[in-house]
Amino acid sequence: MTDVDVPESHPRYESLLTRHRIEEGVEKGITSRQGLIAQGRGEAFDYLLGEETIPSADRAERVAAARLLLAERPVLSVNGNVAALVPGEMVELATVVDADIEVNLFNRTKQRMEAIAAHLRDHGADEVKGLTADARIPGLDHERAKVDADGIHAADVVLVPLEDGDRATALAEMGKSEIVIDLNPRSRSAEAAAVPLVDNIIRAVPNITRHAREMADADAEILREHVERFDPSEALADAEQRIRDGDLA
Amino acid sequence: MTDVDVPESHPRYESLLTRHRIEEGVEKGITSRQGLIAQGRGEAFDYLLGEETIPSADRAERVAAARLLLAERPVLSVNGNVAALVPGEMVELATVVDADIEVNLFNRTKQRMEAIAAHLRDHGADEVKGLTADARIPGLDHERAKVDADGIHAADVVLVPLEDGDRATALAEMGKSEIVIDLNPRSRSAEAAAVPLVDNIIRAVPNITRHAREMADADAEILREHVERFDPSEALADAEQRIRDGDLA
Repeated sequence: MTDVDVPESHPRYESLLTRHRIEEGVEKGITSRQGLIAQGRGEAFDYLLGEETIPSADRAERVAAARLLLAERPVLSVNGNVAALVPGEMVELATVVDADIEVNLFNRTKQRMEAIAAHLRDHGADEVKGLTADARIPGLDHERAKVDADGIHAADVVLVPLEDGDRATALAEMGKSEIVIDLNPRSRSAEAAAVPLVDNIIRAVPNITRHAREMADADAEILREHVERFDPSEALADAEQRIRDGDLA
Repeated sequence: MTDVDVPESHPRYESLLTRHRIEEGVEKGITSRQGLIAQGRGEAFDYLLGEETIPSADRAERVAAARLLLAERPVLSVNGNVAALVPGEMVELATVVDADIEVNLFNRTKQRMEAIAAHLRDHGADEVKGLTADARIPGLDHERAKVDADGIHAADVVLVPLEDGDRATALAEMGKSEIVIDLNPRSRSAEAAAVPLVDNIIRAVPNITRHAREMADADAEILREHVERFDPSEALADAEQRIRDGDLA
């Protein structure tokens, strides 16, 4: 996180970094107009949350790390905003938990798919899936259903940050265990998730990576205990409470 | 409101219309990237408010109408999102309360100023101020301070929808009576306002016009009573309560 000319100690560092990366995403044809509007919705919820990783989100991020470490075929799904906001952080997480990265867009165009894949490679990704698109998620429109047969289609655990509600629901119906990052705890995506993370993606992804590094050598039994003890509805209820009690000023 | 192919009875009509107009704003070079992000923030707050004009906002909009009718030199300030979202509605309100319209941008470029003025003229505006820029608001950076001497600078009452906090504060310090439309009741703009309207601009502007039409022939005494009885902090507290109690789903 050294790509913006502001010291990390600056009180608005995170927000300035986010703006800078989103702007860059637009320049590169990665972030769409819908993505900019979605970014604004996230900002409002993050503001209500206090712009911090709340304790229940931190616990959920540890569970997400455990879930990814236990997975046989974990895939990290990347859309335009994810690629703009946390390209290097997603590549790092993929390395630590040995996951594939797959580009998956709500507004799919060949040009955006390729711009995003190139952006991820610039940030260290070896292989980027999603361009083959030789399989489909059942129950979705043709363009929105496209996935790679050896990527999301075959995955047991999928991290889908900032996902659209229809697709999150369809993936859950395919039996995928979904980890969703969404700042609205009552969104359909958050509710479809096995592990919902109500947190800003800028904070959430590095925090999952940190937890995964800490647990990398843990017994599978201990990881499974973490996953089993987790209650997604409790995490969502806690986040909602924080949003309702948060400081609006 | 007939510029989108969806019947007005459609449950998502307002939201679809908003999207359509914002997209058109981008095409025409009226809406900026910052404007798209701001639109998203507004969507999140509107969602928490229940996407309706709450009773306290309706009362505040009646007060705003009275304040505009009583004004000697009312000005309606228009930025990129306002021009994209409610061009015809702003022109109609200006006619009903006999106000000037002035373009005022946070990211001021000659090209955007002219595109917005042209868009307002396409929607029926006779005269659009803001391009002369022969006066300054004290206490702001050079570009952000620019206003017309016979427009905002000389106004007694200014409607500033979706205004930046610094400028709203600076205008209040100049002694202007400000009517602010802002979906975040704890924003600095809303707090600087004599009449804060916590409502979606798409609903607020036509509603101020409706109230102004109803009160057009009322005695000044009655209008003044409306204005004097109004308590801005009570309106803001009520809106905040609604946001906290609103349905997140």
